[in-house]
Amino acid sequence: MDLDFIKTLVKPAETKIVLLVIDGLGGLPRESDSLTELEAANAPNLDSLAKKGICGLQQPVGPGITPGSGPGHLGVFGYDPVKYKVGRGVLAALGIGFDLQPGDVAARGNFCTIDENGNVLDRRAGRISTEKNKELCEILRDIKLPGVEVFVETVKEHRCLIVLRGENLSGYIIDTDPQEIGKKPLQPQALSSDGTHTAELVSQFLDQVHNVLADQHPANMILLRGFSKKPNWPSMQEAFGFKSAAIAGYPMYRGVSKLIGMDILETGSTIKDEFTTLENHWNDYDFFYLHVKKTDSAGEDGDFDRKVSVIEETDREIPRLLNLNPDVVIVTGDHSTPSLMKAHSWHPVPVLIWSKLCRADKVDCFGERACITGGLGNRLPAIDLMPLALANAKRLEKFGA
Amino acid sequence: MDLDFIKTLVKPAETKIVLLVIDGLGGLPRESDSLTELEAANAPNLDSLAKKGICGLQQPVGPGITPGSGPGHLGVFGYDPVKYKVGRGVLAALGIGFDLQPGDVAARGNFCTIDENGNVLDRRAGRISTEKNKELCEILRDIKLPGVEVFVETVKEHRCLIVLRGENLSGYIIDTDPQEIGKKPLQPQALSSDGTHTAELVSQFLDQVHNVLADQHPANMILLRGFSKKPNWPSMQEAFGFKSAAIAGYPMYRGVSKLIGMDILETGSTIKDEFTTLENHWNDYDFFYLHVKKTDSAGEDGDFDRKVSVIEETDREIPRLLNLNPDVVIVTGDHSTPSLMKAHSWHPVPVLIWSKLCRADKVDCFGERACITGGLGNRLPAIDLMPLALANAKRLEKFGA
Repeated sequence: MDLDFIKTLVKPAETKIVLLVIDGLGGLPRESDSLTELEAANAPNLDSLAKKGICGLQQPVGPGITPGSGPGHLGVFGYDPVKYKVGRGVLAALGIGFDLQPGDVAARGNFCTIDENGNVLDRRAGRISTEKNKELCEILRDIKLPGVEVFVETVKEHRCLIVLRGENLSGYIIDTDPQEIGKKPLQPQALSSDGTHTAELVSQFLDQVHNVLADQHPANMILLRGFSKKPNWPSMQEAFGFKSAAIAGYPMYRGVSKLIGMDILETGSTIKDEFTTLENHWNDYDFFYLHVKKTDSAGEDGDFDRKVSVIEETDREIPRLLNLNPDVVIVTGDHSTPSLMKAHSWHPVPVLIWSKLCRADKVDCFGERACITGGLGNRLPAIDLMPLALANAKRLEKFGA
Repeated sequence: MDLDFIKTLVKPAETKIVLLVIDGLGGLPRESDSLTELEAANAPNLDSLAKKGICGLQQPVGPGITPGSGPGHLGVFGYDPVKYKVGRGVLAALGIGFDLQPGDVAARGNFCTIDENGNVLDRRAGRISTEKNKELCEILRDIKLPGVEVFVETVKEHRCLIVLRGENLSGYIIDTDPQEIGKKPLQPQALSSDGTHTAELVSQFLDQVHNVLADQHPANMILLRGFSKKPNWPSMQEAFGFKSAAIAGYPMYRGVSKLIGMDILETGSTIKDEFTTLENHWNDYDFFYLHVKKTDSAGEDGDFDRKVSVIEETDREIPRLLNLNPDVVIVTGDHSTPSLMKAHSWHPVPVLIWSKLCRADKVDCFGERACITGGLGNRLPAIDLMPLALANAKRLEKFGA
């Protein structure tokens, strides 16, 4: 359902909702015993919540669509990721915790290699080290542009972030990455007339980059993608009427949360630390988003056993969450990251909702195949989770008389 | 998901997808043992694919909607049949390989019998032979109209095709078929003002038909349906980025495939022949649509046992398909045709997707009731099959970073 519709039904309540996002939770079966990571995990507390709750599989974006971390999170936060699109530049800024201001234009940069004719030889400059990247960013920080501030930040390996700050800047600029080797970088043209000024500034910037990186082969140029501004979306407070907090160790997830107006809580980085942060702020918020990252990292590394053990580690903290006496608990992922694929995937993600009013189904353990026959269905759009959470928290009015 | 959205995520891959459409696959239980045609069939190869794959029931158009062959196929091809509407005239033209030009207006014709008062006695003229049809079309080709070319082509039995070619023609003309016996054919009225000219031409044409067929009882008139122009849709290549081929013996299915840019392969008409055609062209395409017609014909005839045996005949060829080592196999129908009803129906259609990445569910045989608890759900929109096929074939990019 649309945010604008939900908004009209929101009412206040003294209830607390916890959304536990286990990143990349969904998996695929390993060969030995045909169990997925979640099915293989010894997770008695999650199983018990599944048994007392209502379960299913949710689709973060749509059938067959593999979500990036941004869209995957926006979906479970109730924001349709196809409608609420966020540019690559903004995501890069969020990812490294860069404090984007309204009006800033951000772009993702790749250090690349060009030949003497200016043609791209390697779009990633041989994937230079992060250390080298930092040296090069230091050099680029000397570049000055008229009337705007320029920020150059290291992301990782060949990836960096460029931010322009000033008046009347536009994100409607085409990518300069030609997407093919043997071609020249594209000119940073404006996609609409109000982008002409920004395109001209970017062009000047790139000319100077070309000069100052001339003897830095293989990283002798940069390609820019995803020019974008921080979007101006309804906050969670506006959409759902609650005070919300994010407990997440990694910049990307703190960034996405900030984009929709959550308070970002300072937290230690272990799972145990994050639950401690939850306990410490229990009285301050109505809605908590708690993010477990390392399931996804393990999946991306193709490490089935490590993913299992992160799930088990998370499971051991669940009693601490329940001791806080929450009204609604949702456990899911932002997407699947099967160890078998070493990547995000399109497979729908196990989800459970527990509350006193959830109407439990017959699912008695938390796993991909068990959830197929759950009461939430096996193709629940992720954006439907938030209205269900609100309903279970008695935070939605009746519709119509 | 919308074609325009999917399109933005398509990437190339060296993978092959086979979509096996068993026409009218879904059925209803017979009284003796409460088994449907598919459940009664001895189909060990389909059962094995279902066991290794992910299953469900798909809805070609929507809940309660009985699809014609055109919409049923467009749905499984990923084109929303409610949005991508195609006229019966155009389908008939494409089906017989008539080279429709932009601007042509096509209509399906039925030779019929009228009495001395002009009332329809038999809407199909006793299903005259195709040979007779050809003789009659030869006669109708002598009809001339001012300023337009007229084409009259035999389809099969009592069915023919009429095409007008000229300037400013419109497809917005009502059917002349009264759909009931004992009534006069309707006048070819325009549905909008720019159709007036065309309606007048059609009216002149039908007057002449009436004259020249006067002594050809029982085929002494024609009824026209589905006036339409060839639509201008994205091709499968444009939408999904692959080279596609259709293996189908019957004109209608070749026609629908051609409309979305598939190559139409010459093929023998038996199921065995069609699989041979698949083998012979295996290296030439990324996507194959293979159509089995006779399940539907048997269902339409109310012949439960014959439908069962066509399913079994299809099943016996499955090993040949698997020997080709496809990356993704989808088996489904374009709609249900329960023998009990002797007609197409609205019942959702069993579907299985097999790939190495499909995330198998617990379904261990291919049947209507077994598929209810499958991982694809039991109300999967048919148009979601193609994005799922692309995902399983690693032909979709991640959405967002």
